[in-house]
Amino acid sequence: FRREYLDLHIHEQAQLFSDLDGTLRSRVYRYLSAEEVGDMFDGIEEEPEDVVRYFKEMPVSYAAAVIDEMYTDNAVDILAYAQNKDLTHYLLALPAERSAEIRELLHYEDKTAGALMTTEYVDIYADQDISSAIQDIRSEAADAELIYYAYVVSSDNELIGVVTLRDLLTNAENTAIADIMTNPVISVPVDEDQAEVAQKVRDYNFVAVPVVDYANKLVGIINVDDIIDVIDEENAGEYSGLAGVDTEETPENPFQASLKRLPWLLILLLMGMSTTSLIDRYEALISQASILAVFVSLITGTAGNAGTQSLAVAIRGLSNSEEDRRSGLRMLVNELLTGLIAGVVTGSAIFLLVGIWKSNFVLGFVIGISMATAITVATIAGNVIPLVMDKIGVDPAVASGPFISTLSDLTSVLIYFNIAHQFLNFFVNH
Amino acid sequence: FRREYLDLHIHEQAQLFSDLDGTLRSRVYRYLSAEEVGDMFDGIEEEPEDVVRYFKEMPVSYAAAVIDEMYTDNAVDILAYAQNKDLTHYLLALPAERSAEIRELLHYEDKTAGALMTTEYVDIYADQDISSAIQDIRSEAADAELIYYAYVVSSDNELIGVVTLRDLLTNAENTAIADIMTNPVISVPVDEDQAEVAQKVRDYNFVAVPVVDYANKLVGIINVDDIIDVIDEENAGEYSGLAGVDTEETPENPFQASLKRLPWLLILLLMGMSTTSLIDRYEALISQASILAVFVSLITGTAGNAGTQSLAVAIRGLSNSEEDRRSGLRMLVNELLTGLIAGVVTGSAIFLLVGIWKSNFVLGFVIGISMATAITVATIAGNVIPLVMDKIGVDPAVASGPFISTLSDLTSVLIYFNIAHQFLNFFVNH
Ligand SMILES: [Mg+2]
Ligand SMILES: [Mg+2]
Ligand SMILES: [Mg+2]
Ligand SMILES: [Mg+2]
Ligand SMILES: [Mg+2]
Ligand SMILES: [Mg+2]
Ligand SMILES: [Mg+2]
Ligand SMILES: [Mg+2]
Ligand SMILES: [Mg+2]
Ligand SMILES: [Mg+2]
Ligand SMILES: [Mg+2]
Ligand SMILES: [Mg+2]
Ligand SMILES: [Mg+2]
Repeated sequence: FRREYLDLHIHEQAQLFSDLDGTLRSRVYRYLSAEEVGDMFDGIEEEPEDVVRYFKEMPVSYAAAVIDEMYTDNAVDILAYAQNKDLTHYLLALPAERSAEIRELLHYEDKTAGALMTTEYVDIYADQDISSAIQDIRSEAADAELIYYAYVVSSDNELIGVVTLRDLLTNAENTAIADIMTNPVISVPVDEDQAEVAQKVRDYNFVAVPVVDYANKLVGIINVDDIIDVIDEENAGEYSGLAGVDTEETPENPFQASLKRLPWLLILLLMGMSTTSLIDRYEALISQASILAVFVSLITGTAGNAGTQSLAVAIRGLSNSEEDRRSGLRMLVNELLTGLIAGVVTGSAIFLLVGIWKSNFVLGFVIGISMATAITVATIAGNVIPLVMDKIGVDPAVASGPFISTLSDLTSVLIYFNIAHQFLNFFVNH
Repeated sequence: FRREYLDLHIHEQAQLFSDLDGTLRSRVYRYLSAEEVGDMFDGIEEEPEDVVRYFKEMPVSYAAAVIDEMYTDNAVDILAYAQNKDLTHYLLALPAERSAEIRELLHYEDKTAGALMTTEYVDIYADQDISSAIQDIRSEAADAELIYYAYVVSSDNELIGVVTLRDLLTNAENTAIADIMTNPVISVPVDEDQAEVAQKVRDYNFVAVPVVDYANKLVGIINVDDIIDVIDEENAGEYSGLAGVDTEETPENPFQASLKRLPWLLILLLMGMSTTSLIDRYEALISQASILAVFVSLITGTAGNAGTQSLAVAIRGLSNSEEDRRSGLRMLVNELLTGLIAGVVTGSAIFLLVGIWKSNFVLGFVIGISMATAITVATIAGNVIPLVMDKIGVDPAVASGPFISTLSDLTSVLIYFNIAHQFLNFFVNH
């Protein structure tokens, strides 16, 4: 059993493991060493809640040994979900230094560089030569996740340079690190937002990025595999916001699935009721000219589409790096013009369509002008609202979709019926 | 100038470069060597169309020298956009071996492993020992983008194992590669879809993945930075599909921006017209009972939301790896039940809301039962249509959003007015 299990790739071990039931899992704990189980949990892509459960199945000393063997970032991710009581037990059973390291990383705020980083990096000094640096890397290699970069620090741990293993292998053994190191180093502050960290790794094509504190002291590194997880998380967030459902996990059964979708569905229903009660105010108008009712959905729908487009562009823009953002006023004018052009073109199209279809160009005119106005308003709203949300600290990816649809529906209805009212005698019921 | 420019990080050089105008760019070509410019283009995140333009500004021999210096994958990405005439010139000016390499990579189909891979990898033999393998890595290090993995091949280039630089540094120098190599190796076939390649890198936390042909011969590697670009591209595609607008590039001016949004807006308008003309058929019914018009948007809107949720979950599901997909029938039943539960709960809520608001529980009942049915239908459609599209080879991320809204609008209107018709005497105009 042991032999066959260990022959699998870590990732496959982890997959197999998560399919086992409790009794079989305890056999794994018996046959495998803490190091082997730690390696497996490092390779696992499972929910921390589940791993916390596995830890509870083990004797505390074994669990602590597994935690000790794991990369610090992964251990911390999981321990963040442990009950306080259990956490204390594990920390007490760990070597003092490890326990301090883990306790420190547990403090960083979620979705910042600090929460992503790990402490398994290789640091060297500028006055070492290449062969002694390689010696250092050798001795830290067993513990470090990736030894492609060695970070050069000053005596008080300030980050002053970086060398790649390639640099070390392509230069003469007696070269001083100071002569070959790259400097200044691209790094991220420990409180940097994870989306910005991901952007930096994307731009510079790094496999790891160093993390520094306010005094430029090296405190950790973030490896590219964890950056990919961040990119996935950010994208899932944007996508879920637009769709009104969290798509990150696929629930196993219909009850869970509908439970997940119902909250948004009901909130959207309530928001939709505001539009409905606005339309209700025009019921008298509709009963006089029922043809008006035929076009309500088309106008609100098209304006809603324009708003969604504008929103999507704005949210993508927000997730780009700061430097790409343009000044507020310039952007507003741009968006106003974009909305106007889109509105006038779409409005003219529907003017002709309805005018010809119903042989009533006044009706066509009313629909066209309403649609043009509604599209312009929705386009601006789709652009401005996420910016405002971002400013006041609400994540626009989560809530602005439904907010903009409702707003756009309300203004579309108002615009439409008020314009139609002016021309009522052209389309009363006959 | 030369000194200051080269002191910048490659990425910053590239950023600065793309802001220069033609005259200044030719100064760069004069002051920098082809190798330096090649390194810069390797670090660039610019559109291949632009780089092709830069090549045309250079003398052909200089352009060919730059191409020669670049990583093959990047060179190929750019040359794919060159005119045939220019391409021929560059290929003729290149060393024969390079030219053959590039010509071969140009053949692979877009969005496959072959189109992503590069040829700068380190290959070694199983019967070498560590010190000779390190010697090999050293000699290839200058050309290779990332030398963290060395791939072990047989005499006929079959991929049989992999060692990491960590493995090489932590074992004795005279150890045979055969004794420490990991085997079997996780690799991807050259015609694998890029989304599947990205999933593999995600699962296994690789910094590079080897690419093999049908006979398991090593033909290239894909580095993690290019995988991140794939992940971004796939996500932008899904997101754009849901929003009905391509959000990948932000156009500079309102005319371009509206040009980009108008095609979808007009298509959606035309699709919306089908719903409008369906509602039009019920105009007589509406003129008898204008209160019915008040709820059309609410029912179509809520069903549309349910359809979008279901669609988003389905598309996310499709982009997950094969193994996670469940059998068709089981999924259909699951989705039917999910839709029914969501529909019954939402329908009951609106039954009470409308019943109390309008003091008319028959009206509430009609709205409630219509909404429940419409939600169920939209949920199933949102799940089934992308699967069908995927089966027949249409990318569901692009087109299914609008398709599902229209279908859901049409069925909602049909369901609603037909049910309402049965109870007409309960809400005729008074
Ligand atoms: Mg370990
Ligand atoms: Mg963490
Ligand atoms: Mg990149
Ligand atoms: Mg990690
Ligand atoms: Mg991870
Ligand atoms: Mg965010
Ligand atoms: Mg180069
Ligand atoms: Mg390519
Ligand atoms: Mg991963
Ligand atoms: Mg590359
Ligand atoms: Mg690239
Ligand atoms: Mg795809
Ligand atoms: Mg809508």
